[in-house]
Amino acid sequence: MSTIAFIGLGIMGSPMAVHLQKHGHAVRGHNRSPAKARALQEAGGTACASAADAVSGADVICLMLPDSPDVEEVLLGEGAVLDHAEPGALVIDFSTIRPDVTRRLASAARERGLRMLDAPVSGGQAGAEAATLSIMVGGESADVEAADDVLGVLGGTVVHVGPPGAGQTVKAANQLIVAGHLQVLAEAVVLLETSGVDLARALDVLAGGLAASAVLMQKRDNLLEHRFDPGFRVELHDKDLGIVVETARSGGVVAPMAGLLAALMSSMVANGDGGLDHSALLRGVERLNGQTPPRPDTA
Amino acid sequence: MSTIAFIGLGIMGSPMAVHLQKHGHAVRGHNRSPAKARALQEAGGTACASAADAVSGADVICLMLPDSPDVEEVLLGEGAVLDHAEPGALVIDFSTIRPDVTRRLASAARERGLRMLDAPVSGGQAGAEAATLSIMVGGESADVEAADDVLGVLGGTVVHVGPPGAGQTVKAANQLIVAGHLQVLAEAVVLLETSGVDLARALDVLAGGLAASAVLMQKRDNLLEHRFDPGFRVELHDKDLGIVVETARSGGVVAPMAGLLAALMSSMVANGDGGLDHSALLRGVERLNGQTPPRPDTA
Repeated sequence: MSTIAFIGLGIMGSPMAVHLQKHGHAVRGHNRSPAKARALQEAGGTACASAADAVSGADVICLMLPDSPDVEEVLLGEGAVLDHAEPGALVIDFSTIRPDVTRRLASAARERGLRMLDAPVSGGQAGAEAATLSIMVGGESADVEAADDVLGVLGGTVVHVGPPGAGQTVKAANQLIVAGHLQVLAEAVVLLETSGVDLARALDVLAGGLAASAVLMQKRDNLLEHRFDPGFRVELHDKDLGIVVETARSGGVVAPMAGLLAALMSSMVANGDGGLDHSALLRGVERLNGQTPPRPDTA
Repeated sequence: MSTIAFIGLGIMGSPMAVHLQKHGHAVRGHNRSPAKARALQEAGGTACASAADAVSGADVICLMLPDSPDVEEVLLGEGAVLDHAEPGALVIDFSTIRPDVTRRLASAARERGLRMLDAPVSGGQAGAEAATLSIMVGGESADVEAADDVLGVLGGTVVHVGPPGAGQTVKAANQLIVAGHLQVLAEAVVLLETSGVDLARALDVLAGGLAASAVLMQKRDNLLEHRFDPGFRVELHDKDLGIVVETARSGGVVAPMAGLLAALMSSMVANGDGGLDHSALLRGVERLNGQTPPRPDTA
């Protein structure tokens, strides 16, 4: 069992930290808004006032933060976790950030005698709470093995997909695929509604064939009821599609659907839908069609 | 049990006709190339030299034909099935055709005292052989009930989705969704390959999260091995996306992904890939990226 620093106790990080504590690790949590540490404390973990405090004595340092600049700031900026970490500590970054930033940070960690894995997740809040996340791990094999008693606690599917940054690249691919599934489904729904088809029955039969997907299963009720309370927020998916198009472009990859999906998702943010669940792409298609979208219930 | 005429004994129609015969119906099959009737004959069915001959004495008339003009020709053209059918016969059209053509043909059937359902299927050759098709049925409720002992033999999921044409609209939505799944997956694969990720492991972890889909499960090996033997041919999916964009346009529906997908699929046909499985959209993305695609094994 390890002493684990866990930095970033939001809707994903908090249940993950609690699972680690309950499985016998000693978890030292830190979050900018300290109130978010309550669930961890109730599970027996320690709330720390700063990231530097949290990593003191920790063998493993977990991060679950919103975006690339947040991770950079915590590791190299004012928090300077990489300078306060114990020698040889293993950094596991669960955040979804740019693969090139991950590679740079992993190098910075190595220069300081530390080790780092990128380990972004798929499965959302429900997956974090049920410890059934898919975890896409990039890094050295020895470090992935060393992380086994942490990753195994959190994920239903843990796969080492390649060298540093590879986890982030697979997560980018994941976000591209999920956005594509949501958008074609949204277009299909508008086509079906306009044609006078029984939408609930149509989604049932679509789910029984080659059109079946986890997105269709999980977002069916959102689409039928126009309920877009998050869930996974449009503004985060927009950030992730930014990573997709930048990664594609910097790698010289032409990806026409990715470009269109990024534009459609950014248009959602521009129209004030950034705080809704990403299944609200249906509202975007309705907007394109001049339909006044029903007011979302974000209760 | 019914006497069933089955017109169109291709890779879908033949196993469907055989299932009906084996379940106690008396099936009278017809196909332009008579050799295709062999499996039905071996199962105890009757091979008929013409469509008019096949429908003689039949309570139910099943069609499984490639495209809208084929169905029009058989029902109203030289074959003139609607004029040779027994009074009150039930026409079940399993073909994937334009919803507006279906509605017109259903009216023509009604004018002659016949009944007609549109009942396009999803699930492909494997679904036809295993009798696990998803069947999307449009038509009158009484006619759907009357078709129960035919549809139930062929499908794992049979859903009445609305009035005449609704089945075709749902099938169009199905083909839009499937094309979208194939294309985002193809772009993701090229992104991953370019980034030096372990592709097989990446697909495993993607299949464990919100990116999971029937397409990813069924086409995984095609993508990994660049094997594009059909399966479902690009040229048929291209025809179906033509139906999608025409249905959207005539219904006044703006669907940007549908438009892009139709263009990308047509580009496959233009580049000589029409005879490959639709998972060969991966070749299209590689072509966009200036990569010489590995020669497909269409054995």
